[in-house]
Amino acid sequence: MSFAFRLLHTDGAARRGEMSTAHGTIQTPVFMPVGTLASVKSLTTEQLEALGPEIILNNTYHLMLRPGIDLLEQLGGVHRFMNWRGAVLSDSGGFQVFSLSSIRKIREEGVEFRSHIDGSAHFLSPERSIEIQTRMGVDIAMAFDECPAYGSSREEVEKSMELTHRWAKRSLDSHSERKRVAGATDPALFGIIQGGIHHDLRKRSVDEIASLDFDGVAIGGLSVGEPKQEMLDTMRFVAPLMPAAKPRYLMGVGTPEDLVEGVAAGIDMFDCVMPTRNARNGTLFTSRGKLSIKNAKFMADQGPVDPDCSCMTCRTVSRAYLRHLFMTGEIAASVYNTIHNLSFYLDLMRAIRQSIASNSFGSFRETFLSRLASGE
Amino acid sequence: MSFAFRLLHTDGAARRGEMSTAHGTIQTPVFMPVGTLASVKSLTTEQLEALGPEIILNNTYHLMLRPGIDLLEQLGGVHRFMNWRGAVLSDSGGFQVFSLSSIRKIREEGVEFRSHIDGSAHFLSPERSIEIQTRMGVDIAMAFDECPAYGSSREEVEKSMELTHRWAKRSLDSHSERKRVAGATDPALFGIIQGGIHHDLRKRSVDEIASLDFDGVAIGGLSVGEPKQEMLDTMRFVAPLMPAAKPRYLMGVGTPEDLVEGVAAGIDMFDCVMPTRNARNGTLFTSRGKLSIKNAKFMADQGPVDPDCSCMTCRTVSRAYLRHLFMTGEIAASVYNTIHNLSFYLDLMRAIRQSIASNSFGSFRETFLSRLASGE
Repeated sequence: MSFAFRLLHTDGAARRGEMSTAHGTIQTPVFMPVGTLASVKSLTTEQLEALGPEIILNNTYHLMLRPGIDLLEQLGGVHRFMNWRGAVLSDSGGFQVFSLSSIRKIREEGVEFRSHIDGSAHFLSPERSIEIQTRMGVDIAMAFDECPAYGSSREEVEKSMELTHRWAKRSLDSHSERKRVAGATDPALFGIIQGGIHHDLRKRSVDEIASLDFDGVAIGGLSVGEPKQEMLDTMRFVAPLMPAAKPRYLMGVGTPEDLVEGVAAGIDMFDCVMPTRNARNGTLFTSRGKLSIKNAKFMADQGPVDPDCSCMTCRTVSRAYLRHLFMTGEIAASVYNTIHNLSFYLDLMRAIRQSIASNSFGSFRETFLSRLASGE
Repeated sequence: MSFAFRLLHTDGAARRGEMSTAHGTIQTPVFMPVGTLASVKSLTTEQLEALGPEIILNNTYHLMLRPGIDLLEQLGGVHRFMNWRGAVLSDSGGFQVFSLSSIRKIREEGVEFRSHIDGSAHFLSPERSIEIQTRMGVDIAMAFDECPAYGSSREEVEKSMELTHRWAKRSLDSHSERKRVAGATDPALFGIIQGGIHHDLRKRSVDEIASLDFDGVAIGGLSVGEPKQEMLDTMRFVAPLMPAAKPRYLMGVGTPEDLVEGVAAGIDMFDCVMPTRNARNGTLFTSRGKLSIKNAKFMADQGPVDPDCSCMTCRTVSRAYLRHLFMTGEIAASVYNTIHNLSFYLDLMRAIRQSIASNSFGSFRETFLSRLASGE
């Protein structure tokens, strides 16, 4: 089954749609839990399935290092490897190469880098990234891009953006060539817009990427250290310029508020490590804001993490028990917390989708944000 | 509902029975997963329930330090705290005091010790241990005993055993007094036999403990560093001397082979951290022996951990995936491994119970041990 996106309904700029993939249909707007190393951290695939996500993200950079693409392909690809029946989107490896590895050389051809694990030498290019993502067997692949650090000069950002554009074309060519040979089993391919926080560069980038034959378009290079307001301003500037007929993906963002604001600007897809990473650090999301489970005030608190949540964690154990597990370093603390945080994110997206369908997203957004702000 | 033990059937020395508690009926012989800090390490209570154990063990020493008995009682006791519907047996704290804490003073009255967590001063005595176990709300409590280190002189072991006997009477008196006041909600109480590896001392100890009005009798002080053969010899010497009408519990033992040998000697109950701790270290039990999942030979192994196992781990993921999770330090590695190891132990006990019921335990034992020995 080839990839398709249908826009079902709009409510202001907010969009209700669905994406078809070989591993099921995905209702948008959607949040994709991050399954870094073919594992959504702390959860078994059975526990992940019980939370009901239709798509997760895997990291090309992490999986090309461990277990490596030859082995991963031999084992039947990421779905079979982790026994996951839903859809998978892979990033291109670009972001992690620039944020985690030690770069040896960036050339027109691609990037030579050393693994953050063992210092071994590796190479990624548009062609190599598309090859790896295809061999992983994912449903949606991303074009290989360069992601400049926040604080780079305008000149550096511009130069990097232009490289990303040339790499986008090479990613697409490589994908088309592979598809011509391999047929319909190849993944869909999304392009990535760069340009930092410079609106004119972002305009050039969205025009360039929109002109190419990608299946979807993503905003990259945000949530990389810039102030929250700059992220929101840039996202709000770019989103309406993105093609209406293709899915729009805001990469690596963000907090529950960010998701609501992204949807309000017309974004369809999100991913972020925040719910899973915060869970392991004892920070829990609730409809009244975040709470730190290690706080002594929860010591004898018999209530659930969030009275409005019906996840397994909230149904079965108290804040007092979760605090005890966290303070004593029990592994189950991460498991319970991750189940709650991902449930919170996935439930939020369900509520967002329902409110768009019933033309009430505006009031949903207002209520959600004011409740968070008041903490009540 | 008060505690009761019924011996249903014997096959040689092997016994098939059942124990009734306020939290359900327990089929024996039984293995009790260890839930140290009111959590069977790596698992949520939901995952534990799915494995089907009828009883778990909680550690008095660990829980009196964190979260502390006042808080635990205020929160409704261990069952409510961890949302566990099955039965709970607590140890007396004695073993951990002598193996984990730094002892300040052992007196006739009890033991002054310092927490291994923060060095805080604490006191345990027969009366205090029974009080804590009762307030935890457990179904079966253990008498407070002294457990001498392996390598202690015969004289030290004898002196320690005599102290354990005096403490046994005080545990029983304290329990009776509390029961007279509090009524039927109090736990059953088991006595503990000591005496190291000295058969004459063990004989004196079993006679002494058997003469007292305990609900069950346990062999303590084994698996504390002595050679395996000494453990088996002592267990085989003591088991037939234990009262036939009461459950017989071999504390802290052991490997799958040990459980089979224990049942063959007439033991009804076991507990051990081995399946859960080994899981976290990547050692998995199978019907062909143990395997270390980090071994490079499993890198591309698409088979399950144990082809004869039907646990969630063996049904859903490969050795190659489990090796990947373990090598990359994923939390899910511990979860999958723990589910397999506990399933292996619990399935073994089910098979043992069935073989006793059908008078075929002898051939079951022979087949099981020879298969383990041949690794095929």
